[in-house]
Amino acid sequence: MAKKILLDCDPGLDDALALLLAHGDPNLELVGVTTVGGNVSLERTTANALALREYLGFGTVPVAAGAGKPLLGDVREASHVHGETGLGSVSLPVATLPLSELHAVDFIIETLRATPGAVHLVATGPLTNIALALEKEPAIARWAASFTIMGGSFTRGNATPAAEFNIYADPEAARVVFDADWQVVMVGLDLTHQALANGPVVERLARLGTLAHELILPLATYYASRNSHDPDGQAVHDVCAVAHVSRPDLFASRVARVDVETTGKLTSGMTVVDFDASIPNALVPVALDVNGFWAYVEHVYGLVATHHG
Amino acid sequence: MAKKILLDCDPGLDDALALLLAHGDPNLELVGVTTVGGNVSLERTTANALALREYLGFGTVPVAAGAGKPLLGDVREASHVHGETGLGSVSLPVATLPLSELHAVDFIIETLRATPGAVHLVATGPLTNIALALEKEPAIARWAASFTIMGGSFTRGNATPAAEFNIYADPEAARVVFDADWQVVMVGLDLTHQALANGPVVERLARLGTLAHELILPLATYYASRNSHDPDGQAVHDVCAVAHVSRPDLFASRVARVDVETTGKLTSGMTVVDFDASIPNALVPVALDVNGFWAYVEHVYGLVATHHG
Amino acid sequence: MAKKILLDCDPGLDDALALLLAHGDPNLELVGVTTVGGNVSLERTTANALALREYLGFGTVPVAAGAGKPLLGDVREASHVHGETGLGSVSLPVATLPLSELHAVDFIIETLRATPGAVHLVATGPLTNIALALEKEPAIARWAASFTIMGGSFTRGNATPAAEFNIYADPEAARVVFDADWQVVMVGLDLTHQALANGPVVERLARLGTLAHELILPLATYYASRNSHDPDGQAVHDVCAVAHVSRPDLFASRVARVDVETTGKLTSGMTVVDFDASIPNALVPVALDVNGFWAYVEHVYGLVATHHG
Amino acid sequence: MAKKILLDCDPGLDDALALLLAHGDPNLELVGVTTVGGNVSLERTTANALALREYLGFGTVPVAAGAGKPLLGDVREASHVHGETGLGSVSLPVATLPLSELHAVDFIIETLRATPGAVHLVATGPLTNIALALEKEPAIARWAASFTIMGGSFTRGNATPAAEFNIYADPEAARVVFDADWQVVMVGLDLTHQALANGPVVERLARLGTLAHELILPLATYYASRNSHDPDGQAVHDVCAVAHVSRPDLFASRVARVDVETTGKLTSGMTVVDFDASIPNALVPVALDVNGFWAYVEHVYGLVATHHG
Repeated sequence: MAKKILLDCDPGLDDALALLLAHGDPNLELVGVTTVGGNVSLERTTANALALREYLGFGTVPVAAGAGKPLLGDVREASHVHGETGLGSVSLPVATLPLSELHAVDFIIETLRATPGAVHLVATGPLTNIALALEKEPAIARWAASFTIMGGSFTRGNATPAAEFNIYADPEAARVVFDADWQVVMVGLDLTHQALANGPVVERLARLGTLAHELILPLATYYASRNSHDPDGQAVHDVCAVAHVSRPDLFASRVARVDVETTGKLTSGMTVVDFDASIPNALVPVALDVNGFWAYVEHVYGLVATHHG
Repeated sequence: MAKKILLDCDPGLDDALALLLAHGDPNLELVGVTTVGGNVSLERTTANALALREYLGFGTVPVAAGAGKPLLGDVREASHVHGETGLGSVSLPVATLPLSELHAVDFIIETLRATPGAVHLVATGPLTNIALALEKEPAIARWAASFTIMGGSFTRGNATPAAEFNIYADPEAARVVFDADWQVVMVGLDLTHQALANGPVVERLARLGTLAHELILPLATYYASRNSHDPDGQAVHDVCAVAHVSRPDLFASRVARVDVETTGKLTSGMTVVDFDASIPNALVPVALDVNGFWAYVEHVYGLVATHHG
Repeated sequence: MAKKILLDCDPGLDDALALLLAHGDPNLELVGVTTVGGNVSLERTTANALALREYLGFGTVPVAAGAGKPLLGDVREASHVHGETGLGSVSLPVATLPLSELHAVDFIIETLRATPGAVHLVATGPLTNIALALEKEPAIARWAASFTIMGGSFTRGNATPAAEFNIYADPEAARVVFDADWQVVMVGLDLTHQALANGPVVERLARLGTLAHELILPLATYYASRNSHDPDGQAVHDVCAVAHVSRPDLFASRVARVDVETTGKLTSGMTVVDFDASIPNALVPVALDVNGFWAYVEHVYGLVATHHG
Repeated sequence: MAKKILLDCDPGLDDALALLLAHGDPNLELVGVTTVGGNVSLERTTANALALREYLGFGTVPVAAGAGKPLLGDVREASHVHGETGLGSVSLPVATLPLSELHAVDFIIETLRATPGAVHLVATGPLTNIALALEKEPAIARWAASFTIMGGSFTRGNATPAAEFNIYADPEAARVVFDADWQVVMVGLDLTHQALANGPVVERLARLGTLAHELILPLATYYASRNSHDPDGQAVHDVCAVAHVSRPDLFASRVARVDVETTGKLTSGMTVVDFDASIPNALVPVALDVNGFWAYVEHVYGLVATHHG
C-alpha cells in the first residue's frame, strides 16, 4: 500500500524535483501540497506549486498556501540560487485550477487529524507552517506517521558558515519543530551533498525525453551551470527528504539530539547536533547509497516521463 | 455608540476585574473573550473566563480558547500571585455554557475581519494568541480599531528586575506584536503601579454590596493581603488597559519605539522603550488621573452591582 | 586622617570636576590618577589628566595611562557630550611633567598592594583598567579599602534606553568588575541625576572667582548650555562617586545584586539590579542629600579656589 | 638559524609533547614557556611546565605563570581527559628551579618587544594570556614573527558539538586574539584529528627507549587507553601547532575569516570559519602530510632521547 505523503515546500528548483518524485513514486500517495515563503516569496512558491500540479497532472491533490514570512525577523530569500521565479529557467503555463480555501496551517492540521498515523509529513522549506501548526494543534506531532525535513547540517552551513538556508530562514520555527513531541528525520547538507546531479547522472536523466528536457534537467543543472566552483554537480537536496520516506533503506542514519541556535550573533539558525546525547530527538541520515538513490530517482522519473508522453 | 471590544486574557485576578469593566461599561460592547495560558494554565484561564461569563450574565458573548504555551520555551506561570485557580480566594460555579468551537486565533481573525475598523483589541496576558493571529493573517493589524496591551514597562520589571510578566512569559510573541503594522498602546507597570486598590479605594468599593464582597474585593486584595511589603495596595494592572479604550482622557501618554529583548541572558522579555526614536511604534501611557480612574471604575462596577442584585 | 584615593578616569567634563574634588578635599589624599579611553580617546583623557594636574598644582601625584579600547569590540566615545577635547570649552596649557612609566594596570596593582586596606579605588570611566588589573592580580579586590564607580543605573540608561555610557563602553569589563570579590559601590544615573548644576548652584559656584570662571563653570555647564532639553542643569555624575568616598553620609543606599548584560541585542551594557537578591554584590546609592552635597562640593572647591589665587 | 619560539601552554598531555618538540627540534630555539589555566588548574600547569623543564634539562629557559581563569565566567577544566595532574600517568620529580618573577603577560610582551619580528608565538591552551597581553600592548601583534594556536575547528567541536575546548574555555579571549592585527594560524581539530598516535606510530616511538617509556608513550596513549571509542589512537593536538612553526611544508592550508561566537546559547566558543570571506584574518591548515609529520616528530624525539640517555 502506498504511503500517504503531505509535502510542505517552497519551490524552488529541488522542491520541484522532490514534488515530481512524491507524485511519481507508486510507493507514495501525494495527499496535499502546502507552500511557504522561502527560496522565493510565498506568491512565487504558491504559483509554482500550482503550475507544477497542472503540468504534471495531479489536479485532484489540494494545494494550500501558508506563511509568507518567518515567525520573527525579516524574510530571507535565495533567488540567487533558484532564479527570480524560483524555477530557474523553467517556464510553465500559469495554473487555472484553484488554491485550497484552507490556510496551509489548517490544511496540515486537518489532513493529519483525519487519518492519525497514516500521513507522512515532509517539509523542504523554512519550517514556519509546521511550527504554526504545532502551536495551534500540538497533537499533529502524534498524528504524523513520520516527519522528515530537508534542513540543517552537522558540520557546516550554506547560508552562513554555520547555518543551512531552511533553518536560517526561520530559526525560531525550527526550534519549535525540534522541540515538539516527535522524532525529526533531519536530512541535512552533509547528506544532500552526496546527492549530486553530476555529468553521468545528467546523461542518464537526459534519456527520459521531453520531461527531462523541459523540466528535470533545467531544474537539476540551473545553479551549477552558473557556478563554476561547483564542478561536481548540483545537489538535489529536497529530493533526498522525499526519498527517505519511500526508500529509507538507501540511507545510513544516526540518532542525535538536535537543537537550534537562535541567539548566536554568528551562528543563528545553526542546527547543533549531538550524537552522544542521552535524550535524542532526531534521526540524522549521514550516508547515502548514491548509486541506489539515483537508480531509484531515475526509475520514478521514468515512470512519470512515460505517462507524460 | 458603544465601542466594540475583544478581550484576550488569562484570568487572573486583575483580568477578571478588567473583564468586569469591559462587560459593565455602557461605553463598551464586549464582543468576545479569548483565553491564553499565562497567570495560570490555559485550562484554568478558560474555565475562569467561562465561569465569570455565567456569573456576570453575558452568556451571549463567545469565549474561545487559544494557546496553552508560549511560541518558544517553557510555560511560566504566576500562581504565586493569582492563587492556584487564578482567581485567588474567589470560587465560582463551574460554567455550563459551551466554549466557542473556534480556536482563539481564528476567533480573533474572524471577528476583526467581519467589521474592519470597528473592534478594539485588548490583550492582558502573554501575547501568544495575538502573535499567532498576526502570523496567520497580518491584516488584523489593519482591521483592529486599536490595540492595547497590559504589559512591559519603561523602567523596571516584576517577573525579573528587567522584565514584566506578560512579556517575559512569551518574549517572541511580544516581539511579533510590536513589529506588526499597528500602534501598540502599551499600558505597562510604570502606569499600572499608579492604580492601586489601597485602603480608601477598597472602602469605597465595599459599598457596592454583594458583587463587591463576592468578587471585586477578593480579587482586588488577594495578593496584597498576603504580601506585607505592598502596603499601598494591589495594582489592578489589566483594568487600566480596558479603561484606556473607554476613557483615554484619564491617561497622559508619550509615543515611543518599543522593542522586545529576546536574546539577553538577564533581560529576556524586557521592553526597551525609546522615547526619542525617529520611528515610533507605540503609545505609552505614563501618567494616570488616579482619582478620575477610580471614580470611573467605581461607577461602572456600581452599574453591574445594581443589575446583579 | 585623610582617606587615600586612587582615581581611574577618562576626563571628561565631570571627571575633571571629580578630580578637582579629590584633589581639594582635605579629607581625601589623592595618591594617583590613572586614565582610560572613554568619553574621548586615551590620548585625550591622558593629556587632560596631565594638564589638570599642572593647572591645579598636584605635580607629585603620579598619572599613569591605561587601556585605549574596551576588552572586546569597538571604541565608543562621547565627544558629542564632552566636546572634542573632552573638556568642553576649557583650554589648559599642555603639561610638561611626565607620565608615570607604569601602565595604569600595574600602577593600580602596585598602589593597592603597597598598603592593603588603605586605598579607596574610584573609577569614573569605562572599567577596562580595573578589569585588567583584576585579571592580572585578583587580590586587588581584597586590598582596596573600598571600590566605587560612577556607572550603570537601576531604571534607564543614557547611551541607550537600557545602558549607561561607562558600562556600555565596556560591558565585559564591567562584568568582570561586578563578579570580583568586593562590594561595588555603584553610583548610577538614578543617583547622579539628582546632582544637577542648575541655576542657583551655578550662581553660588560663580562666587568662587577665577577657578570658577576658568574651570568649574565651563565644565559644569558646557553640555547643558548646548542642549535645551536639559533645562534643570547638567548632572555632575562623576563628582558623586568621589563624594561618596568622603561623605557617605550624604547618600541613602540599598544593597543589591548587580549583573551586567553582555549578550542582549538591545540591552548590552545594562546593569540589571536586583534589590531582593539573596547574594548581593553591590551597594547602590539611591537618594542624595542634594543641599548637603552642593554645600560640601562648594566648600571644597572654595578651598582650592582660595589656594589657587 | 633556529627560529625562536615562545610557547604559551597548559600542560596537559599534548602540551607536554609539544614542549618536547619545541625543546628538541634543532630548527627551533625555545626562548620561554608561559602557563595558563586550562586542561587543569594554573597551579598544576605551572608545576608541570617547571617539572618538564628540569626533567628535559632546559633549565635556562624561563617559565612564567599567567592567568588562572578566563576573562569572563567560570573555569572549565579537562581533567577527565588529561588526568588529575594534567600529565596522565606520568609522575615527574617536583621542580627546584624557580619560576620567572614576571607575570606571563609581561613576559610575553617583553620577550616580543626585545626582538621584534624574531619570536614565533605559539599558544596551545586557552587564549587568556595572549588576550591580556594584547590588551596591555597591542603592538605585540606586530612584533610576533608569527602566531599559531591549537584551537577551534571548522566543522565540529569536542567540548561541545560546536566548540573546541581551548576556545570554549575562554571565548572572549579568543575573540580578542582573532580580532588583533595579525594572521592567526589556527591549527584546529579538523587538522589535529589527522595526527593520531595509532598502533604503528606507538610502535615506532617505543623504540626510542627510556624517554619513550617514561614520558612520550604514557602521554600519547593515556586518554585513548581509557576510551575504547577512540580506536584509531589519541590525537596529539598541540604537537601540530609547534610542528607548523618548524615545518609548515607538512601542512596544506587555506586563508579564512575566523570569528568567535561569544553570545550563542549552544554555540559559545565556536570558531566560525568563512573560507570565502573578503577580509581574512587567519590561515587554517586543513590537511596534514601524516607520514611526513610522524617522521619529523619521531626524528626530533629521537634526538632528545639520545641526549637524554
